[in-house]
Amino acid sequence: MSDLNLRNATSKDVRMKGFRNRTTVPEALAWVDSKTTSLAPEVVDLSQLAGRILTEDVVSPLDIPGFDRAMMDGFAVLAEDSLGASMYNRLPLQVIGQSLPGNAFSNTVKRGEAVKIMTGAPMPRGTDAVLPVEKVEVDNEQIFAQDAVSPGKHVGYRGEDIACGTTILSKGRQLRPQDVGVLASIGARVSVIRKPRVRIVVTGNELLPPGAVPTGSQIVDSNSPMLAAMIQRDGGLAINPGIVADDPDAILEALRDEVDVVLVSGGSSVGQEDYAPMLVAKHGELAIHGIAMRPSSPAGMGLLEKRLVFLLPGNPVACLCAYDFFAARAIRILSGLSTDWPYRSIRCPLRRKLVSKVGRVDYARVELIGEQIEPIAISGASVLSSTTRADGFVVIPGDSEGYPAETELEVYLYER
Amino acid sequence: MSDLNLRNATSKDVRMKGFRNRTTVPEALAWVDSKTTSLAPEVVDLSQLAGRILTEDVVSPLDIPGFDRAMMDGFAVLAEDSLGASMYNRLPLQVIGQSLPGNAFSNTVKRGEAVKIMTGAPMPRGTDAVLPVEKVEVDNEQIFAQDAVSPGKHVGYRGEDIACGTTILSKGRQLRPQDVGVLASIGARVSVIRKPRVRIVVTGNELLPPGAVPTGSQIVDSNSPMLAAMIQRDGGLAINPGIVADDPDAILEALRDEVDVVLVSGGSSVGQEDYAPMLVAKHGELAIHGIAMRPSSPAGMGLLEKRLVFLLPGNPVACLCAYDFFAARAIRILSGLSTDWPYRSIRCPLRRKLVSKVGRVDYARVELIGEQIEPIAISGASVLSSTTRADGFVVIPGDSEGYPAETELEVYLYER
Repeated sequence: MSDLNLRNATSKDVRMKGFRNRTTVPEALAWVDSKTTSLAPEVVDLSQLAGRILTEDVVSPLDIPGFDRAMMDGFAVLAEDSLGASMYNRLPLQVIGQSLPGNAFSNTVKRGEAVKIMTGAPMPRGTDAVLPVEKVEVDNEQIFAQDAVSPGKHVGYRGEDIACGTTILSKGRQLRPQDVGVLASIGARVSVIRKPRVRIVVTGNELLPPGAVPTGSQIVDSNSPMLAAMIQRDGGLAINPGIVADDPDAILEALRDEVDVVLVSGGSSVGQEDYAPMLVAKHGELAIHGIAMRPSSPAGMGLLEKRLVFLLPGNPVACLCAYDFFAARAIRILSGLSTDWPYRSIRCPLRRKLVSKVGRVDYARVELIGEQIEPIAISGASVLSSTTRADGFVVIPGDSEGYPAETELEVYLYER
Repeated sequence: MSDLNLRNATSKDVRMKGFRNRTTVPEALAWVDSKTTSLAPEVVDLSQLAGRILTEDVVSPLDIPGFDRAMMDGFAVLAEDSLGASMYNRLPLQVIGQSLPGNAFSNTVKRGEAVKIMTGAPMPRGTDAVLPVEKVEVDNEQIFAQDAVSPGKHVGYRGEDIACGTTILSKGRQLRPQDVGVLASIGARVSVIRKPRVRIVVTGNELLPPGAVPTGSQIVDSNSPMLAAMIQRDGGLAINPGIVADDPDAILEALRDEVDVVLVSGGSSVGQEDYAPMLVAKHGELAIHGIAMRPSSPAGMGLLEKRLVFLLPGNPVACLCAYDFFAARAIRILSGLSTDWPYRSIRCPLRRKLVSKVGRVDYARVELIGEQIEPIAISGASVLSSTTRADGFVVIPGDSEGYPAETELEVYLYER
């Protein structure tokens, strides 16, 4: 029983310390902010750019269009040659070739000549206007202009959409699908903020891997699939090679993985979570352990050789809450994303009073019944079922005792 | 020049027909809705479930927790044995083993015996309560109870979180990260709506593939990277094997790819888009060609051997608009997603009047200046640059002539 005793002793020591000086939520958020900044740039393929954050201004290295082009189907001519043309004064021109998009007419056009041209095709040298196909009569290799065109008519000029040297997208922009299109047009290779690599460390000898079917006293790791989906939402790359043995060496090795952030989540029991805080304290800095909030009061955070480590409670609700409050914020800052909650919010009145305790922040899961907020009573028993039953949550600040019925509150919705 | 003549002739025929009977936007939307329904279910790995739509109610096949368990660290006892215990009447119990999460005590506990137990560990047979560690004095293999506990105290019962047979998630639910966690807990393999496979067919002999750097009269395909990002946003799988030669056989082969939706986008010129409508009309049904809207009036749609085909204009703005109005809707319906615009909207006043024409729908790109809407003047010249300059768009319905300055309108924002 020595193993069990050691664990409990360790657990107590660390926890007592945490509980004596519980960090407030604003202090913990300030710690996250002080330790995180957006990651270094990387160049990625066009197909991976949407949603990423630009780390540089993008200046077009070329003119778009890159050449003078026809804006109508017709005949490229020298405008002067059409001077005075009308239905009653048809002027003949010799058609000496054609210009197609991607297949320009390569010779120079002389007075009295014309080149058949399609919309988007390059204007041949020597021409300065397009006679629309409706304004000519075609007779084999000859056409008769029935209207005059002025110089520049139906011509799109080089650089008139995007001039070489123009800043088309600014640093910090979250790239939209159409931005990716424009970047493709100018042949740009751009730098974006690197995605943080986030290692999920789930410990617990009693746990089965996700995908297994539990029997008897077995429990399946449910936190790692949940965390992986949230990491992806927040711009990170989830790395989750499997459950880590409940052993200090194995856990330390996992904590030292080549990543930007480590999320440690214990199994279902309190004891399972004890090695990680010890290891972070010993080999790095356990900055915060124990936070004045509910749930997630056992959460902690620290640094291990430059990696941010978040200690998330094993309880799924507390894990979700601690992730959303602290780890999501860190991952989003590293990714260059906004630190706003990644949830849509609406304002609704409370159906009944919602109590809290001064001195702690409450992350209260709620259901929406009609247009009203119904707090979900959380007993220890409904931990898992409450995560799917809730429509969202409200945050009750530390200085509030809660709210009477009919108070209008902001609800953050879990639905997309 | 026969090739060019043929193309123009074909173009005219198809186009004139489309333009004579221009379909209204509501008619085109109704056609999309009549031809699309969510795709068949498929079973996917847990790691791919977030954001997908359930096609079945999920009924838990087991109890969670799957066994009676301790809710505190302490000693599992028969409550009766603690009857009358207090600081002044300490009752001795023999510790015969321990129960850990994932490592249950396997024997039966008899009167006068206790088992050391950790939170989350299975309650041994013969015990019905947990004496918290604070309420006992430990003396090697013996403990002294200093308090009485009632039956069931600090015990979590099998099935009290989720009872076997409970419906935990309903058909149609878009799965959240925590839903994936709960599904892992119960070892469920669930069916979700299959993702539509969407083939991007970009034609145009003049086009360079995305990633290339254009020189001279070359143009890079900018529509396919934009479309790929939007398809992914709308729940589809983009299939984009590269630019298709401007040749009817090659285009027909691409139109017959094993997919659910085909998006055809031409090059920069009108002529480039002509084979696809012809081929859809010949081998399938060209239901709509020419729509009363701006931009995107040349857009079309039809069916080819059960595949939905959308003809998107080559002009990037018109391509974006036609995709968002029609193709996005189809892909979202196939994916089981809402047909709402996938953009956040806000209401703002117009800075100056915004004119439209009765009889057509306008998709007007706008900038936000302060809190006001500034319409972007679209000339043919600013096609590409306007896609990145716009903050969003407003939709002007077909029966409106536009709006005077200061009218409050709904703006759909391109930003996430």
